[in-house]
Amino acid sequence: MAEPCVVIIGAGFGGAEVARALRSAPARVILIDQHNYQLFQPLLYQVATAALSPADIAEPVRRLVRGQRNVEVLLGEVAEILADERILVLADGSRIAYDILVIAAGSTAAYFGHDDWAPFAPSLKSISDARSVRSRLLRAFEEAESTDQAAERNRLMTFVVVGGGPSGVELAGSIAELARYSLAKDFHKIDPKSAIVLLVEKGSRILSPFPKELSDYAARKLKALGVTVQVNCAVKRISETWVETDEETIPVAFAIWTAGVKASPVAKTLGAPTDKSGRVETNRDLSVPGFEGVYALGDSALVHDDKGNSLPGLAQVAKQQGKYLGRALARKLQSKAPPGPFVFHNRGNVAVIGRHAAVIDFGWLRLTGIVAWLLWALIHIYLLAGLQHRLLVAVQWLWRYLTYDRGARIIVEPKAEGDSSC
Amino acid sequence: MAEPCVVIIGAGFGGAEVARALRSAPARVILIDQHNYQLFQPLLYQVATAALSPADIAEPVRRLVRGQRNVEVLLGEVAEILADERILVLADGSRIAYDILVIAAGSTAAYFGHDDWAPFAPSLKSISDARSVRSRLLRAFEEAESTDQAAERNRLMTFVVVGGGPSGVELAGSIAELARYSLAKDFHKIDPKSAIVLLVEKGSRILSPFPKELSDYAARKLKALGVTVQVNCAVKRISETWVETDEETIPVAFAIWTAGVKASPVAKTLGAPTDKSGRVETNRDLSVPGFEGVYALGDSALVHDDKGNSLPGLAQVAKQQGKYLGRALARKLQSKAPPGPFVFHNRGNVAVIGRHAAVIDFGWLRLTGIVAWLLWALIHIYLLAGLQHRLLVAVQWLWRYLTYDRGARIIVEPKAEGDSSC
Repeated sequence: MAEPCVVIIGAGFGGAEVARALRSAPARVILIDQHNYQLFQPLLYQVATAALSPADIAEPVRRLVRGQRNVEVLLGEVAEILADERILVLADGSRIAYDILVIAAGSTAAYFGHDDWAPFAPSLKSISDARSVRSRLLRAFEEAESTDQAAERNRLMTFVVVGGGPSGVELAGSIAELARYSLAKDFHKIDPKSAIVLLVEKGSRILSPFPKELSDYAARKLKALGVTVQVNCAVKRISETWVETDEETIPVAFAIWTAGVKASPVAKTLGAPTDKSGRVETNRDLSVPGFEGVYALGDSALVHDDKGNSLPGLAQVAKQQGKYLGRALARKLQSKAPPGPFVFHNRGNVAVIGRHAAVIDFGWLRLTGIVAWLLWALIHIYLLAGLQHRLLVAVQWLWRYLTYDRGARIIVEPKAEGDSSC
Repeated sequence: MAEPCVVIIGAGFGGAEVARALRSAPARVILIDQHNYQLFQPLLYQVATAALSPADIAEPVRRLVRGQRNVEVLLGEVAEILADERILVLADGSRIAYDILVIAAGSTAAYFGHDDWAPFAPSLKSISDARSVRSRLLRAFEEAESTDQAAERNRLMTFVVVGGGPSGVELAGSIAELARYSLAKDFHKIDPKSAIVLLVEKGSRILSPFPKELSDYAARKLKALGVTVQVNCAVKRISETWVETDEETIPVAFAIWTAGVKASPVAKTLGAPTDKSGRVETNRDLSVPGFEGVYALGDSALVHDDKGNSLPGLAQVAKQQGKYLGRALARKLQSKAPPGPFVFHNRGNVAVIGRHAAVIDFGWLRLTGIVAWLLWALIHIYLLAGLQHRLLVAVQWLWRYLTYDRGARIIVEPKAEGDSSC
């Protein structure tokens, strides 16, 4: 009899862990991803701000599972899940049958009904996004240098980051450092240090998942870097050259959207109940109620802990779920008793603001300043997949620390306002 | 009285040297390039074969001339030279007046009347080209892995490099090594080692600028790597899925064009006589006859040496010409006597085939094997602009040497046969 086929949609932090944990399981495993690499999203903002190259934070999926004979890697986009037939339909029309399905498809940016803003306010979820933001940022300074009109120059040196979560904070801080340090000496007519970076947050404070004292610290440090932090401030409209908040209309080079995510659309095609973010409601063992043999995790799943709180969309949640589910499936395939429900172990929340400034919340311990910053760097080097990536990122960070220079200051994407997809 | 304005078109090896040599000259210098970086073209094939990232071989123009107060860098594309008015017209319509003009605009791929082949056979002249080739190469192996049809699989694992000059040889060798070593263990259904790499050269031997014994050595080493070298073989037609030579029609994943270059089109707009490659015929002091104050160099210029031979389109020629011309212009601006004509000093020709295999021709000395290979690596690290780039490239080379792995195996460009520009 043929071995059962486990199909995993998504080779991110969650999906790849499932595949790895099935190493010795009696199953044929198919790991499908629309990219041939696993992206280390926590450092994507550094690609967007010219500090790292895309490949530095992208590990080939095939290398992640190299040597695992029972895992097949498939480059493809899943268009639809036909749950009744236990079949996946790919975007190219081909079909894949599964016995067990793991939905670990991650998330995309959510503009909450304003998808028309996307061309003017790219998000930061993919390598293409990061390249686009990098080119737009660097080009804005080039254009500011070559214009004769003061108002236009000011517009071109104004950047708005929408969303004060960890991604928004890290991005805003990094743009400010790019302007203040890396570009400072390279222009004649403009002073990059005078660039305006605006961080707009709808809620009452930035870094809302963190304790208030850490939010306050981050706000102070961002201000010291020259970032203008506006809380209780909602964005009402975004166009090619301005952003309208409920307080003012600001001419901007462009905006960057970090204000929300939704589950990748494939999750919804299963037909199971989802929340408003498109996440599949999942049992505590990550199985989907009413869909025998179907599981969801990470940003594709709405999972509750024993207190009834839903688990946050964090890399560490997805990774732990992936490891848990992979082991659980291995037991199932060997007809062993199932494990208890998934329990999330919080390894700590981290966000970096800039040089010598980060916040870490371990629950039992809160850190700020240079200690948190160093720990942040070590954790991220450690978490990167592949020794070569660790080495390359470490070299580039050390270089930047010593010289303030950034090595990836290239504008390659053609100028195309309204086209962030190229 | 305002200082004279020296405008340099192109911040490549030649143009940047002119700007640097004018450091202390009493002139306003404007350095225009369509990119914000200087590309180290000799290593572009390594980006195309996933060994390096684009930013590793791209140095921001502003950093090249950092601290030089009399040099303005301008990101822009020159559409036309209005020689009578001493004005440049940029693609965006803006105009720049010059007193002295240096045309150092480099070259683009020439398909010799077959521009319709370009979508199927990208060239390797820009970062976009290299990214496109990289994505196509890696995607071909992915598609070969997922197809069930043997003929299609064979097609997807066949690559043709057109042109047996140094670029073609280095690219063919690197593709073969990618398949043979870096990808070898990562697939289940296909054996990447069985990929066919065909190097097609119209002339009677590859590396024709080198002595015959070095050509023969290179051909032997390519064969040992699994590259099929076909000399005296002209390409008659190229389509999306096959290449027709005067010997056979071969189904291929795609072809890569390294068979010819022509001067960037702006040179022609000057209105001076050009050769069939679009190069401006230039006096031996690099001035353009009949155009007072206009100079050309590098791939934009047709310059003869004292024996009447035209100088080859090499980085070292452009660099030496740039240094010569910059100094000559500095003397002219200070009303000093002009120097003698430009004399090219051959620093040696180098081409690498693969691990432990390269050829170097110093004229008085010919090297092959591991010695040439090591020297090749040292020379290229040395020639890279910027210590950070040297460090990053060295780390990646060392890593690759030890592990056979390549760090930049990412497919980002969308699949778009017939569109190499994205």
